[in-house]
Amino acid sequence: MAAIAAAVSSERLANDLATVAMFGGRSDGGVARLALDRNDTRARLWLIEQASALGAKASVDAIGNVFLDVPGSEHELDPVVTGSHLDSQPTGGKYDGALGVLAGLEALRALKDAGFTLRRPLSLVSWTNEEGARFSPGTSGSAVFCGVRKLDETRLLEDSDGVNLGSALDTCLAELDAAGVARRPLATPMHAFIELHIEQGPILERDGASVGVVEGIQGVSWFQVTVTGSANHAGTTPRAQRRDAFEGACALATALRKATWDDEDRVRFTIGTFSVSPGSVNTIPDQVTFSIDLRHPETETLKALEATFNQLSQQTWAGCRATLIPLSRVEPVAFPTTLTALLDDTAHELGITAPHLVSGAFHDAIHLVKHCPTAMIFIPCRDGLSHHPDEHIELDDAVVGTQLLAASLARLTC
Amino acid sequence: MAAIAAAVSSERLANDLATVAMFGGRSDGGVARLALDRNDTRARLWLIEQASALGAKASVDAIGNVFLDVPGSEHELDPVVTGSHLDSQPTGGKYDGALGVLAGLEALRALKDAGFTLRRPLSLVSWTNEEGARFSPGTSGSAVFCGVRKLDETRLLEDSDGVNLGSALDTCLAELDAAGVARRPLATPMHAFIELHIEQGPILERDGASVGVVEGIQGVSWFQVTVTGSANHAGTTPRAQRRDAFEGACALATALRKATWDDEDRVRFTIGTFSVSPGSVNTIPDQVTFSIDLRHPETETLKALEATFNQLSQQTWAGCRATLIPLSRVEPVAFPTTLTALLDDTAHELGITAPHLVSGAFHDAIHLVKHCPTAMIFIPCRDGLSHHPDEHIELDDAVVGTQLLAASLARLTC
Repeated sequence: MAAIAAAVSSERLANDLATVAMFGGRSDGGVARLALDRNDTRARLWLIEQASALGAKASVDAIGNVFLDVPGSEHELDPVVTGSHLDSQPTGGKYDGALGVLAGLEALRALKDAGFTLRRPLSLVSWTNEEGARFSPGTSGSAVFCGVRKLDETRLLEDSDGVNLGSALDTCLAELDAAGVARRPLATPMHAFIELHIEQGPILERDGASVGVVEGIQGVSWFQVTVTGSANHAGTTPRAQRRDAFEGACALATALRKATWDDEDRVRFTIGTFSVSPGSVNTIPDQVTFSIDLRHPETETLKALEATFNQLSQQTWAGCRATLIPLSRVEPVAFPTTLTALLDDTAHELGITAPHLVSGAFHDAIHLVKHCPTAMIFIPCRDGLSHHPDEHIELDDAVVGTQLLAASLARLTC
Repeated sequence: MAAIAAAVSSERLANDLATVAMFGGRSDGGVARLALDRNDTRARLWLIEQASALGAKASVDAIGNVFLDVPGSEHELDPVVTGSHLDSQPTGGKYDGALGVLAGLEALRALKDAGFTLRRPLSLVSWTNEEGARFSPGTSGSAVFCGVRKLDETRLLEDSDGVNLGSALDTCLAELDAAGVARRPLATPMHAFIELHIEQGPILERDGASVGVVEGIQGVSWFQVTVTGSANHAGTTPRAQRRDAFEGACALATALRKATWDDEDRVRFTIGTFSVSPGSVNTIPDQVTFSIDLRHPETETLKALEATFNQLSQQTWAGCRATLIPLSRVEPVAFPTTLTALLDDTAHELGITAPHLVSGAFHDAIHLVKHCPTAMIFIPCRDGLSHHPDEHIELDDAVVGTQLLAASLARLTC
């Protein structure tokens, strides 16, 4: 394990990060590498070029996921897989996604350089359109690979220029075909999948940890709340005769927030949009609409909070009626403890402190967990910032994360 | 007094209301008679036509205020004046403004029919551009007449088509000149001014009163509040590390509202606009801006509340800083008790129940009170509704109000 960790090269990793950041590099230091655009295709071709030095075979599936497959001594066994995504937000950073692909690449190199013998095959993957910034929704590559979404329906997603994902994909695939990249089927079995990613939150930075073991991904419920009162003249209507939708919405929002308060600080409750009608300084509002983003790692807690929200929205608030409409729901994901325990043991053996945490953001792992045992490794990002040109990591953290990834992959391939 | 009240004709008043409502009448039953537009000029010409039957002389001043002057036996005395405005909102009703002019007209007729001898001259006035809907700000006619605003500056106000008030006024004045209407100076002295108006609020209707005596006009303070936190990912940021501008603004708004709570229900506190930035469902807001409309009849209370608002805004709210910027302030107006007592006495003599109330809306009286003893009479409007095609009054209430007006004018002219 120590030899594998020692074989991880911070120089190579730093060079790779700098190289890939140039595909779609922005003048503000950020990256705009939208799914299946010219820069995304260039990044894929660059990744594919790295295969031969690893003794790996590059291939691409029908949704554009790129794989580099390193054979194991028992080639009929299901492979161990690592990777992430190369696409970014339009005003994105250098690390969200790309780090996981390049850490995986460096882990494969370290295993080779350390002379480690793979029993199982080992694969690196880059999933198509994780961000959903150009074609919404995201996680297209992993969802189609795992059979969660249909390929033909996903090909119909359109970007804001009316270009559909299918035609952008065909352009990309034609370039990969021309480069001699083989095609591969979807839904191929995997022994395990481990993804390294930046945390996109502040917890590891706060705790001074270089790396964290992710226990799962929070479930998310989105709601739209409408509070209806009665518009009236701000100057002439006594308090006792008002049904002020703003007052009602403010009281309901406060009650909802109070209902989510937990000592452990695990519930995430956010009101991010709030619009007041008619929106005139001297008119009492007759309607307020606001959003709720509610997240928790446990289904039971999410359900209990949703029930409380329903109850609260059936009460009268400052004389106003409220309605609560569920907009979307994604169930929490718990990574198997066998796999997180393997990460814990490996970290312990390497002398790495790796606290547990839950992912607040989505990742391709949300689909992979249905396909095979799946886990994630996080490294801190400065101020928890992501989806922003100022997204920043410390190279030392990336190296520690890659060491944990490489050693864990080695174990899994034994 | 009883003879004067008996001489008020509900038929004439109803006819006049119906006639004037046709100048700019809308298909939805409302009125669009914007200041100095063609319909406003036609309504003025109609009013001027009523002069001869009253033995009155019509005249117009440099800002377009139209006067009908009935001579008194001692013509060197300052006149008693009543009136209101003929302009409306673009989707206005039949009564806001017009009722006060037509009730004044009917009061003059009733005094004549009752054979009442005027010692002082008595005048009816229609003020120009009270609403401010076409040319903002409103109360142009009364403000310029009373010397509160300058004529040349007021003439420069532009409507949304870029037409300035001066040119619209000149077009109107040319028509009045052609009709032989005399010019008169601004700022002529008055013995007293009494305006009858619809309440534009729900109090008289709630109390089942046909008429009310207005003690004054509330003062108004407008503020803009900005609460600044820190934007972050809704899924990944623990509660303890958030500085959620929405949470802060909601808490501050609640505290501000609580600070305005009075048992007497005289404070008017309204948050009518509230905007959240960046306004994304899954982003913790970094900034909220909201408005405050605060009204009270007493300067001291307004000042005390403003001081409390300042204090509250200097606190930290959910980790966020707040700033409170005063946008505008209009001092409360108290009508002289000599005049409200005269209205009380007259109502008592006529057997009319006329509770006191404070105006929550602005009126030309806000300027007139600086020029001469001023008071107002309100009559109820259905559901407190105004500035709307559904604006509605009961004719019986209008008659009672006109009786009180006519009898009070009679007293003042003695």
